[in-house]
Amino acid sequence: MNIIRFLTESGDIRFGTNYQDGRAELLEGDVFGRFDPTGQIVKVTRLLAPISPVNIYCIGLNYQEHARETGSELPEYPIVFMKPTTAVIGPGDPVFLPKCCTRGPEVDFEGELAVVIGTSARDVTEADALRHVLGYTVANDISARKWQRNAGGKQWIRGKGFDGFCPLGPVLVTANEIPDPQNLALHTLVNGETMQNNTTGDMIFSVAKLISYLSQDTTLLPGTIILSGTPWGVGYVRKPPQYLKAGDEVTIEIERIGRLTNPVQA
Amino acid sequence: MNIIRFLTESGDIRFGTNYQDGRAELLEGDVFGRFDPTGQIVKVTRLLAPISPVNIYCIGLNYQEHARETGSELPEYPIVFMKPTTAVIGPGDPVFLPKCCTRGPEVDFEGELAVVIGTSARDVTEADALRHVLGYTVANDISARKWQRNAGGKQWIRGKGFDGFCPLGPVLVTANEIPDPQNLALHTLVNGETMQNNTTGDMIFSVAKLISYLSQDTTLLPGTIILSGTPWGVGYVRKPPQYLKAGDEVTIEIERIGRLTNPVQA
Repeated sequence: MNIIRFLTESGDIRFGTNYQDGRAELLEGDVFGRFDPTGQIVKVTRLLAPISPVNIYCIGLNYQEHARETGSELPEYPIVFMKPTTAVIGPGDPVFLPKCCTRGPEVDFEGELAVVIGTSARDVTEADALRHVLGYTVANDISARKWQRNAGGKQWIRGKGFDGFCPLGPVLVTANEIPDPQNLALHTLVNGETMQNNTTGDMIFSVAKLISYLSQDTTLLPGTIILSGTPWGVGYVRKPPQYLKAGDEVTIEIERIGRLTNPVQA
Repeated sequence: MNIIRFLTESGDIRFGTNYQDGRAELLEGDVFGRFDPTGQIVKVTRLLAPISPVNIYCIGLNYQEHARETGSELPEYPIVFMKPTTAVIGPGDPVFLPKCCTRGPEVDFEGELAVVIGTSARDVTEADALRHVLGYTVANDISARKWQRNAGGKQWIRGKGFDGFCPLGPVLVTANEIPDPQNLALHTLVNGETMQNNTTGDMIFSVAKLISYLSQDTTLLPGTIILSGTPWGVGYVRKPPQYLKAGDEVTIEIERIGRLTNPVQA
C-alpha cells in the first residue's frame, strides 16, 4: 500500500492512500497496526511527511562510490548519527538556508532511502530485520558542511540538525511492495539536472544489516526512521563544489517509492 | 517547585510534588503550562524520569578540567551530539551492561546537569535563554568508550545510545528556584566513593550559551533536554581506568536538585 499523511480542508491530520490530482482515499485505523481504506475520497490541502518520527538515525558513508569520492576508507562499522525530530519537513516545504550558514555557501543535499520501523525491534538478526519495517520513503539528509566539519569534535549533529534539514516523503510504500530494498534506483536532481544516479545495491551495509546493528541492546520503536546513507554525487565533492542556493529546487526520486521535491529559500 | 513523575497504584502516570516517604502530592494541569498542587497525597509506586523527552541534545567536553584530563584542547564551539529517547530510564532503574559491550570493560558514568526546555525556543539570545527553561534535573550520560571511539567515523551516538544509557531524575526543580545554574556543586559516587566533585561554574559554555547556540535556526520544543556536559573524574581517564561492572551503584548528586541513583546489572 502507498500511504500519505496530509492536512484535510478542516485542518485535521489524516492518513490516505492513492493520492492523485489533489485527492486521496482516507485510511482508518493505526498506521502501525491495522489500517484500512475507507472508500471515502477527500481533498488533500497539504502533504505532510508521511510519518512523525520518534527518533531519526542516520548512516554516514554507506555507499561505496560515495566513500571513495570523499576520500574516505570504507567504514568497518556503520557510522551512526542522529537528527532531531524538529528537522523534519514535508514534500514541497521550503528548505530555508539557515541564517548561521550564510557566510559562504555550504548547504548540501543528500538523497537517501528512508526506512520506517513498524514494530518494536531489539536485538534482531539480519535475517529477521526486514519483518520490522513498516515501509520506505524518500529523504533528503540536508547538511551544512562547515558546521558538520568544524562545529566541535567533528560530531555531525549540529551541521545536520537545523530546522528543515530532513525533508521526508511524499509517499510511504509498505514493505510488502518492496521485498528487496537493495535494488532501487535513486536519482537526485537540482533544478532538473542529475546530481546523484545510483542504486541502493551500492550500499556497504544493507538495510537489514543496519536494522540489526542499530537494534543491538537498543529498542527501535515504531516510528523510528533510519536514513540509510547517500550515494556518490553530493555537492561538496563536485568540481567545482555545487551548494544549494535560494531559488534552487531539489528532487530525489527512488524507484517504486516516489519523488520528493523541495524548493530552497533564503 | 520540585516535580516528580511516577506510577500510581493503579498504574497511571502522574506528576507530583513534595515526594517523601513513598508519597507525593498530586499535580494537576500541564507540566509545560499551568500546573497546580491538588492537596491530594497519593502513594508513589515507582518513580519515573521526570520528563519524557522529545529530543535529547548532549554536550561533549564542556568542563575545563574534564577537557584537560582527556588531553583535549578547549573546544571553540560546543560539541553537540544526541541520544535516542529510548535511552531514558528513571531513578533506581538498573543500567544493564549491553551484551555487545562485554568483551572487556568499557561502560562509564558521566554525571551531568540536565536542562529541560519549557517553552519553544528558536534563535534566542544568551540573555533571553534561561526564560525558556522549565527546570533542571540530574542525568547520567552513560558511555561505552570502545563503541564511542571505534564505532565508525568517531560519531559518538552508537556508544552513548544503548537502552538505559540516559538515567534521569528523580526530581525536576523549576527554574525559578535555580536563578544561577552555574553555581551548583556536582558529585558522582560509585559504590559510595567520590568520582566526580566539581561545580557547574567550571562549564566552558554556560547553560544560557548552550541554549542560544542550539537554538540557532533550530526549534527546541518543550520537553527537549540538554545534557550540559560532565566534569573531570570519569572512569576511563582514571589511573587505572575504572569502568562500571555488575553490582555497582552510581549516584549523582547536584546541589539544590537531588540525587540520582542507579544500580548496574549484567
